[in-house]
Amino acid sequence: MSNTLLSSIYYPSDLRKLDEEQLPQVAQELRDFIIDIVSVKEGHLGASLGVIELTVALHYVFNTPDDLLIWDVGHQAYGHKILTGRRETFDTNRQLKGISGFPKRSESEYDAFGVGHSSTSISAALGMAIASNLKGEFNKQHIAVIGDASIASGMAFEGLNHAGVTDANLLVILNDNAIGIDPSVGALKNYLTAVKNGKNHKQNNMIKSLNFDYSGPIDGNDMFAVVKELKRLQKIKGPKFLHITTIKGKGLKQAEEDQVKYHAPGKFDAKSGEIHIKSEENLAPKYQDVFGLTILYLALKNEKIIGITPAMPSGSSLKFMMEALPQRAFDVGIAEQHAVTLAAGMATQGMIVYCNIYSTFLQRAYDQVIHDVALQNLPVIFCLDRAGLVGEDGATHHGVYDIAYLRCIPNMIIYAPLNELELQNILYTAQLGLAQPIAIRYPRGRGQIPGWQKEHFGHYKEIKIGKANKLRSGSKIAVLSTGTIGNNVITALSNIETSDLVAHYDFPFVKPLDENQLHAIFSHYEKIITIEDGTVKGGFGSAVLEFAAEHDYKKNITILGVPDEFIEHGTVFELQQYCKIDVKNLETIFSSKSK
Amino acid sequence: MSNTLLSSIYYPSDLRKLDEEQLPQVAQELRDFIIDIVSVKEGHLGASLGVIELTVALHYVFNTPDDLLIWDVGHQAYGHKILTGRRETFDTNRQLKGISGFPKRSESEYDAFGVGHSSTSISAALGMAIASNLKGEFNKQHIAVIGDASIASGMAFEGLNHAGVTDANLLVILNDNAIGIDPSVGALKNYLTAVKNGKNHKQNNMIKSLNFDYSGPIDGNDMFAVVKELKRLQKIKGPKFLHITTIKGKGLKQAEEDQVKYHAPGKFDAKSGEIHIKSEENLAPKYQDVFGLTILYLALKNEKIIGITPAMPSGSSLKFMMEALPQRAFDVGIAEQHAVTLAAGMATQGMIVYCNIYSTFLQRAYDQVIHDVALQNLPVIFCLDRAGLVGEDGATHHGVYDIAYLRCIPNMIIYAPLNELELQNILYTAQLGLAQPIAIRYPRGRGQIPGWQKEHFGHYKEIKIGKANKLRSGSKIAVLSTGTIGNNVITALSNIETSDLVAHYDFPFVKPLDENQLHAIFSHYEKIITIEDGTVKGGFGSAVLEFAAEHDYKKNITILGVPDEFIEHGTVFELQQYCKIDVKNLETIFSSKSK
Repeated sequence: MSNTLLSSIYYPSDLRKLDEEQLPQVAQELRDFIIDIVSVKEGHLGASLGVIELTVALHYVFNTPDDLLIWDVGHQAYGHKILTGRRETFDTNRQLKGISGFPKRSESEYDAFGVGHSSTSISAALGMAIASNLKGEFNKQHIAVIGDASIASGMAFEGLNHAGVTDANLLVILNDNAIGIDPSVGALKNYLTAVKNGKNHKQNNMIKSLNFDYSGPIDGNDMFAVVKELKRLQKIKGPKFLHITTIKGKGLKQAEEDQVKYHAPGKFDAKSGEIHIKSEENLAPKYQDVFGLTILYLALKNEKIIGITPAMPSGSSLKFMMEALPQRAFDVGIAEQHAVTLAAGMATQGMIVYCNIYSTFLQRAYDQVIHDVALQNLPVIFCLDRAGLVGEDGATHHGVYDIAYLRCIPNMIIYAPLNELELQNILYTAQLGLAQPIAIRYPRGRGQIPGWQKEHFGHYKEIKIGKANKLRSGSKIAVLSTGTIGNNVITALSNIETSDLVAHYDFPFVKPLDENQLHAIFSHYEKIITIEDGTVKGGFGSAVLEFAAEHDYKKNITILGVPDEFIEHGTVFELQQYCKIDVKNLETIFSSKSK
Repeated sequence: MSNTLLSSIYYPSDLRKLDEEQLPQVAQELRDFIIDIVSVKEGHLGASLGVIELTVALHYVFNTPDDLLIWDVGHQAYGHKILTGRRETFDTNRQLKGISGFPKRSESEYDAFGVGHSSTSISAALGMAIASNLKGEFNKQHIAVIGDASIASGMAFEGLNHAGVTDANLLVILNDNAIGIDPSVGALKNYLTAVKNGKNHKQNNMIKSLNFDYSGPIDGNDMFAVVKELKRLQKIKGPKFLHITTIKGKGLKQAEEDQVKYHAPGKFDAKSGEIHIKSEENLAPKYQDVFGLTILYLALKNEKIIGITPAMPSGSSLKFMMEALPQRAFDVGIAEQHAVTLAAGMATQGMIVYCNIYSTFLQRAYDQVIHDVALQNLPVIFCLDRAGLVGEDGATHHGVYDIAYLRCIPNMIIYAPLNELELQNILYTAQLGLAQPIAIRYPRGRGQIPGWQKEHFGHYKEIKIGKANKLRSGSKIAVLSTGTIGNNVITALSNIETSDLVAHYDFPFVKPLDENQLHAIFSHYEKIITIEDGTVKGGFGSAVLEFAAEHDYKKNITILGVPDEFIEHGTVFELQQYCKIDVKNLETIFSSKSK
């Protein structure tokens, strides 16, 4: 594959030296470059392929980085990264110490705003645009590129509602491809579809109602059309809105045809597009599938059960229930606030609602958890997927705050299963009739039990609320773990010589704590070590400290977990090493404490 | 005043026995009843007066409580409460053990959903409506009454966006009075004004774009018009939207004319409408005014300073800056998420942004604080008004979680001033060039220093980040307080006999902790007592426990603060008593610990 133009582009200033007629070739080379590297190194594919023309056109027409460009979410920013100084490091994407999978201010001056969670771009760009006006920089442009799934989130509406009454030089570009990670949903999506089909947008334009200068829809994969329209908009002051349509995965046939699978396909053949299928035989199941299959099983037997996901049917595996019981399983789009209060409303009517939200995204609905669920003591079942360290998605996506931010909420039960069995059994227990809300946090990825589906699916045991489990006896030290990180403890203890000194307790309930077990532990052991894959500030360890203070136990207590800093990207294993909660570090700590 | 109809109405079933022609008289009596009681007992006035006709009509037409009725925010629900079993207890409104100022499920089956924070009603009602369909209750109606300020919040949009693609029996009633607590803002407000003025709604209707059956606008203070339209809508299935216009404060001349002041006017003359003005001479200033006047002073000298409030210009006293420097002080409406990320965007451009949000409402922007501000280490200055126990607004509004939910966020400074001087000095210090975000939490109401404005306004001292202050020496016990609750400690210690045994340290910085001071304290004293007006789970006390564990100090540590339960309404003093952090309880605790 020839790479004659792209190889000479280090920064947008190089791109701007080209003739407009050369831009389609740049786009082709950029597409090939991304496919070549992502096919081997993995990452988010489809979104970036869809906006290649837009990416090239934006950097060609606008004067980045002086003009400020924000990519909402950032899944689509690979082309942007490659054109802005990171072509030669792009093969380190999402690796430890490599470049981030998302735009990031500390990485490049071309990354005007760090992203990862959706729907922040309009607010951020508006803030920049207002600041520019105050500084007298009236010719500066501020551009937010946002997808149709992200613009349906409430925060984006708040940004539009404010921007419409300002004179800020804001250009919002709606990248309308009818899909986020999964297909877009909701009334706005239907409206946009009608607009694209030429229906009713002339006479009935929502965006114009919000006082924007609206143009479009135009074909966002037509380079010359995009360049022409951007050049026109560049000269217009005030809030502007450009509606473009693109095809997610554009340029790779399979990616265009199966947009969900090729959002982040893993390794694939760059030429044929075929995904390399790994054998899943003998692998433990993903926690996501333990959730997805178990809720389906339970829902088939209990017609009060409802499932909700805000835009993650594939990621969470709620898709199984959505396919089998569509009337009781809901994808509400990127709308975490709505998802939680919708669940609360359903719970008032006696429904048993499993509201599945990634831990990091529940931060978006924190008030709704407090004000609409816990305060009314409604027994909503929060399933917090991707809790703990998530690996390659990095700092924006780690689910490490949930224990701390949920533990201060009255009425809330917090449960972190050690393995697939604890997860399936708590899912089962939660629908037997809880009198209060519960948050069940479990990590991304695979569990511990390869034969889970065959041996355990459909066989459930009720879990006693608030009960901890003694896994191993010891004479001197008690290790108290919560969640799947406890498996590192199990392995570490099986490896060290002094293991007879070290007891291990599994505390799946961070709240309520098993106080009887804690009294026994504090009476018996000299030293206590707590371990969690969440922040050490305010987490499970702090709960144990609070218990000890309340009962005036004066012991040596060591808190292990995620330190008080933002943790970057890398494999989960590498990040556990960084936090010193990997098996080797635990062996060292346990051995040294045993002396 | 005659009260001949209202006195016979205990429940809506009584109301429904009346002829439609009698309803205006009921409305008049209800208005008089509310004015009579609120004039003496205080509370929210204007919102309820505006929706009297709607309230009577809803309970007359619909079959409450089987039909489910949700009042967004709930400021407007006094008439609803009086018509639904609480006429005779209405004079206990907002008092300890009296009825709540907001609808509340545990108080009445007519309160279908507890409210307090805005914009939850559509999601909750939709959840109920979907549940009803699943249960086969296809004739049940589910009604959300939401104001034009609240519907502009992102969460409401998320609810509409979902509802529009369902067949749920949802009736959204937009109570459009062009004001929340302060006048409504934003592009949607301008759009609604255009609709009311007969402009462009036929051909360009946002709500219809979201697939709702739209009707209106109609005069919501015209009883017969409202009853007629509700009767029509009652028979229509699926999502419906009724746009009514009302006058906030309707029926009390002054309340109509000064809608901001009469939102919650305090005591007033029921006949004349005149507010009883209390002499403010010799009173300490409100913390709100210390903020509002200080930021104005600073902003006049430093042109990089910006102020932001989400819909609380009066409550926060940002109004002073908004009047004097309108180009740099922004009311963004009920849009906390947008407010925070807007601030982040401005901060990237070198602006010094004071983002003033009530502690309880920052819960609405938790993810934005983590993801958009702290992760990028942008020096946004969060001013958390109404932190701690807020008194009569009760469980929905206490700002008691902030320390716990902020403390786990890396990079974040958390500061709770002891008094007006610490507040003004930290506001001053924050604009000298912080390298990271800070949250400054201070309570509702008046401070400690009656002569503050005359003596201290305009005279500022830089505060050293992370420094605690020794206020009083003692030999045996160290009391560590954070924030204004420290004044209770000061008073208690001045009252007890054993006060020479008790030292007192002011820890305005919850994060970073003054570790030098803590080492000195833990080396010197036998017993440590921490006190805060926030939750004991994960709060300041836990931070001290974490320090002690890290350095293996084995002391008796007592954590005082808000217990792990939802605290109801009452005066701040009564609630402090309940939490055992009032002066008398502290005296008892200090004396007993001294023995």
